Amino acid sequence: MPASNKFDNLRVVLVAARNPLNIGAAARAMSNFGFRHLRVVNPYQVAFREARSAVHATDLLAQAQEYATVAEAIADCRLVVGTTAIRHRELQHPLKVLKDGARIILKRLPASPVALLFGSERFGLSNDDMSHCHWLMHIPTRDDHISMNLGQAVAVCLYELARETKIAISKKEDATAPARELDRMTALLVETLLKSEFINTRTAPSSEEKLRRMVRRLNLRQGDAELWLGILRQILWKMNASEKAGPRETRKS
Amino acid sequence: MPASNKFDNLRVVLVAARNPLNIGAAARAMSNFGFRHLRVVNPYQVAFREARSAVHATDLLAQAQEYATVAEAIADCRLVVGTTAIRHRELQHPLKVLKDGARIILKRLPASPVALLFGSERFGLSNDDMSHCHWLMHIPTRDDHISMNLGQAVAVCLYELARETKIAISKKEDATAPARELDRMTALLVETLLKSEFINTRTAPSSEEKLRRMVRRLNLRQGDAELWLGILRQILWKMNASEKAGPRETRKS
Repeated sequence: MPASNKFDNLRVVLVAARNPLNIGAAARAMSNFGFRHLRVVNPYQVAFREARSAVHATDLLAQAQEYATVAEAIADCRLVVGTTAIRHRELQHPLKVLKDGARIILKRLPASPVALLFGSERFGLSNDDMSHCHWLMHIPTRDDHISMNLGQAVAVCLYELARETKIAISKKEDATAPARELDRMTALLVETLLKSEFINTRTAPSSEEKLRRMVRRLNLRQGDAELWLGILRQILWKMNASEKAGPRETRKS
Repeated sequence: MPASNKFDNLRVVLVAARNPLNIGAAARAMSNFGFRHLRVVNPYQVAFREARSAVHATDLLAQAQEYATVAEAIADCRLVVGTTAIRHRELQHPLKVLKDGARIILKRLPASPVALLFGSERFGLSNDDMSHCHWLMHIPTRDDHISMNLGQAVAVCLYELARETKIAISKKEDATAPARELDRMTALLVETLLKSEFINTRTAPSSEEKLRRMVRRLNLRQGDAELWLGILRQILWKMNASEKAGPRETRKS
């Protein structure tokens, strides 16, 4: 494996993969096409690291990083792309066909860590998983048989990324906010909206999912994300201060 | 499976495949991308037809035709293409990279049966197998790891053939918010930030300019702009209500 390469910024993230053979096959395809950062969220079987299917990719598999949540697995990424077989359910996200999506990913890779998410063999990515994504991408399969084997889907996506070696790449520094900050902003927004009674604790989880998607749609730059964090903290402080001012006044009189 | 399609002239020929799971995976990928004529030459295991990996492709696998020799398997084909991982041995054949080879195959398919050969997992196609081919094709993998899993290699080749197919994607109207709403949002944001003392009246004009730019950078959709207007109105209401609560309490006591 070379010391570094143009694909080093890609993180292949397998979410809740069931079958270790598929994880191994994903590792093998990664090695075939020159990708090396595999991240695994909640695999069903802890023994995945021994998967025999990782032919010539055992090192890559051994170095895979394990996470408990999608949020942690993508925290350092500035672009988060989910893969899905589904095209016609009311997706809450922009959907791009693989070759168009790959072009965008390739433009971003030289400057930014990018996460490419694959869901479980049975269910794909959940709505909650998708809410962490900026957009979704699908492989153009036949309408009557859209569900691909996980290892094959990974191979096809990585092939598409590696297919064009000569792609004009903008080397401007990527000013997009990393997922970690978008997560903080989402959390603060939820807190603010609870405090201001825009949402309530009963509906908070589904609201949070909606808000998470909305925040991703904003395409925030780093500086803007910081500005929003400051704004929301200040609003929260003010609402708390005003509340306390009430009783304090009462005590004084 | 449709009655007939533009890929009906392609025969995917697996020569001496060892692992039934790979044969099943090849069948699945064929079904995914709309190919249906699988031919098998001397499979190592006769039980390949029951391969569980042929998810949603059991019919295709059941109808696979079995041959004793490559010559028989390709007898009706007018173009025979072999796949190989190897690039540098003294190949006796013209070698094309997948995307260029696929283009030629696509041109021939409407008029002629074309065979696409894949060799065994361990050895690939033999020189004898290759001698039946018009030319060879390889998937552009990393020089240090050229050997792909058979099922993945089939998936990648068929993806390349199907790649240019235009699949209608429902293009949901993605209406951007009109300037009027962005203006309202900016005004409400300024009001909220004054109220929460994030900015003050002295610096408000220059802050407003910055905020206006920032709001434009968000590229808000109509629905999101409305959401933000609701959020900001609620926060303002809450901050005002909390402030009033103070004096009211005071009066009561």
